[in-house]
Amino acid sequence: MTNPLYLPELRGMLAENDAQGLREFCTALHPARTAEFMDGLTADESWRVLQHAELPLKAEIFCFFPEELQVEILEAIDRDEAARFVGDLPPDDRVDLLNEIKPKIVAELMPLVPVEERRDIQRLRAYPEDTAGAEMTTEFARLGEDCTVSKALEEIGRQAEELETIYYIYVVDNEDHLHGLVSARQLLSAMGNPETPIGQLMERDLVTVHVDDDREEVAQKVARYDLLAIPVVDDEHRMLGIITHDDVLDVMVEEAAEDAYRAAAMEPLQESYLGTPLMALTWKRGVWLTILFFAAQLTVWVLREGQGTLASVPWLVFFLPLVISTGGNSGSQSAALVITALTAGEIHLGDWWRVVRRELAMGFLLGGFLGVCGYFCALVAAPDQVSPTAALVLPITLVLVILWGTLAGSLLPMLFRRLGWDPALMSNPFVAGLNDLVGTVIYLNVAMAVL
Amino acid sequence: MTNPLYLPELRGMLAENDAQGLREFCTALHPARTAEFMDGLTADESWRVLQHAELPLKAEIFCFFPEELQVEILEAIDRDEAARFVGDLPPDDRVDLLNEIKPKIVAELMPLVPVEERRDIQRLRAYPEDTAGAEMTTEFARLGEDCTVSKALEEIGRQAEELETIYYIYVVDNEDHLHGLVSARQLLSAMGNPETPIGQLMERDLVTVHVDDDREEVAQKVARYDLLAIPVVDDEHRMLGIITHDDVLDVMVEEAAEDAYRAAAMEPLQESYLGTPLMALTWKRGVWLTILFFAAQLTVWVLREGQGTLASVPWLVFFLPLVISTGGNSGSQSAALVITALTAGEIHLGDWWRVVRRELAMGFLLGGFLGVCGYFCALVAAPDQVSPTAALVLPITLVLVILWGTLAGSLLPMLFRRLGWDPALMSNPFVAGLNDLVGTVIYLNVAMAVL
Repeated sequence: MTNPLYLPELRGMLAENDAQGLREFCTALHPARTAEFMDGLTADESWRVLQHAELPLKAEIFCFFPEELQVEILEAIDRDEAARFVGDLPPDDRVDLLNEIKPKIVAELMPLVPVEERRDIQRLRAYPEDTAGAEMTTEFARLGEDCTVSKALEEIGRQAEELETIYYIYVVDNEDHLHGLVSARQLLSAMGNPETPIGQLMERDLVTVHVDDDREEVAQKVARYDLLAIPVVDDEHRMLGIITHDDVLDVMVEEAAEDAYRAAAMEPLQESYLGTPLMALTWKRGVWLTILFFAAQLTVWVLREGQGTLASVPWLVFFLPLVISTGGNSGSQSAALVITALTAGEIHLGDWWRVVRRELAMGFLLGGFLGVCGYFCALVAAPDQVSPTAALVLPITLVLVILWGTLAGSLLPMLFRRLGWDPALMSNPFVAGLNDLVGTVIYLNVAMAVL
Repeated sequence: MTNPLYLPELRGMLAENDAQGLREFCTALHPARTAEFMDGLTADESWRVLQHAELPLKAEIFCFFPEELQVEILEAIDRDEAARFVGDLPPDDRVDLLNEIKPKIVAELMPLVPVEERRDIQRLRAYPEDTAGAEMTTEFARLGEDCTVSKALEEIGRQAEELETIYYIYVVDNEDHLHGLVSARQLLSAMGNPETPIGQLMERDLVTVHVDDDREEVAQKVARYDLLAIPVVDDEHRMLGIITHDDVLDVMVEEAAEDAYRAAAMEPLQESYLGTPLMALTWKRGVWLTILFFAAQLTVWVLREGQGTLASVPWLVFFLPLVISTGGNSGSQSAALVITALTAGEIHLGDWWRVVRRELAMGFLLGGFLGVCGYFCALVAAPDQVSPTAALVLPITLVLVILWGTLAGSLLPMLFRRLGWDPALMSNPFVAGLNDLVGTVIYLNVAMAVL
């Protein structure tokens, strides 16, 4: 399980041109692990080690390199060599990679890529980012309905090296219309009847995605139906490609990270935390921080208008952050609940009234309880300044800000979904900013009414 | 792709006892879709429809029912029948299910479950929640090293119906020590040499997880190495089970939801939003809301101590929410960056100094820019009250609270990881609460120093 090789030894083998040792290194391990053990080599060294692996292993190891290294290698090596290698990479991976390479170099490479691969690349690059089309690979196992079990097994054995998955074989007609699916499992179970046409075995009720579907929808379908791969079709139900389970996992990881950034009011990162230049990172944070800063000027204005009340009842200020943060917290909770339920498909826009009723009920319960706590806190915190009547400002305010938090936190994500935007955008910072403002307004008005 | 059947028709077929129609309904579609079309039937009706599917299809459709329905069915039907059916379910799914059923009924069922399955259930239930052991299934394809390609193909064809995946075949010795892995892909490619022993084909460098590993680690490995399934081993490298790609996807979905709840200061839900009783939901929110509420009393106390300053400089109050929320927002951003990078394995605890330097640099840049904005905002907001010197309170405070936010937001998640806790616990509410307090302290002290 552990590898006896270390970087100095790899470098030693490169210096001595130890072809056998390097070949063994490339083939002994899982390709991902081979790539990990090379971590620390320069782009040039990595590429020289890789020459000792044959295709498709060479491409597999390469795909496990960090993206920055992949880009560096392809930009550094001879254009002809790079173009040929690009032709050998899996269709979905090479498109992702070309999107990261300098456009000038891509323009030099493309004419050198073999014509069939070049067309495939151009087609895939035309699909908008984050759609099924942009995520799919165009290499998949396809056979006609008349093909027999024994011929099908032979055929997929022959294609095994080239295809990303051979465990789902798609049954298509001459125009690539998708008719059904036979799994390797079914073929192996049917080995006893080698002459059966696969049209008799195939499943006809297939779960598919449209080429324009969002990749998050794709991930949800694959998760829901426990699929190894999902076929991507066009308007005429012609099969264009597949998206495999491992790509779906990657999509999930990326989407989860994006949601986490959005929830903290940041533009999602394209690269790793330490790999993103400091100024780029500052910019991604600064944009939203500045927007929220200027939005908070509204609260400044509200407090300036209320300065008469604040001056005559100084203890009101003590509870200002408490009131605001309690409303904000209840709003974040509602937003997290509704966003998660929307994403999981547990609730739909039509359920809005049920959601609102639940949230209001919870708002009353939580607000009532914390209101009682707040009443006594006020009396305890400033016994010399707060009368039992004046202290009523707190429970009334707390009930109202918590109710407002639950309403805004639950309805705004649903509104965003309705408008076709990502509800996750609506999670913390906006709700929080809005709650600061509304919480302050409520607090000052309740205070003026009671006192 | 669309199904012509609707609930009334299903009910009609049940009333007429239309065995052929119901059998066709059960077999025509993907099992997940069959289950979806039955949505709305009672537990009794669902179970009666299911009688027309044979094993293992019956178990597959059942596993796609919502969990509440599965529980209701098993609790309602005859104990003998339920026990036999439990024996037929996939090992990992039935353990999850039994954990949801009333303990009294489980105690009645268990003695009726066939002995081999009963032992398996008891073993799996002994693993702590969220470990690899609790997630794995004990049914997988295993063969000896001497087995030939043709015999291996025959064998997995025979077992195809019973196993969750036949695409990875594990090579073990008599004591179940894991030696290697042969994929169905390799076997199919090697069909031309049927007498080759699989020991010659197998990969020996396997990625495995330990039975006590956290399920999040399992998911990360499967995602990193693009696996269909990962073997679960004990201390002696004996193979205990596998975790398949579809279960990993489910883990990812659940973990993402848990993180979202934690980030919003809530206990994760066990069931769906609408399925969780109102009081349970209120409790899960209320606990943290109350803790944060009482933590905010510290801010009340700080402001009461500072009331002299606030009374003599009334305009300070206008900017209190702004100062607090800006610090809170920069802290959330840092926390989101560091938590995401930690989870993805991009940074490690040893990188803490690099992280702190980056965060401090960003804190200075962001604080400097917003400080300048804040200076002019103060002059504009209350020109009659704020002198050019007094306005300096804002830029100084903003730089300090933003620096504090970036430091706390980046270091606290790393501290939590160091203590073996989930860094995601450290995201929004705690950092936010702490920032409220520290921000207020900084603001008042800067004001006293400047004025």
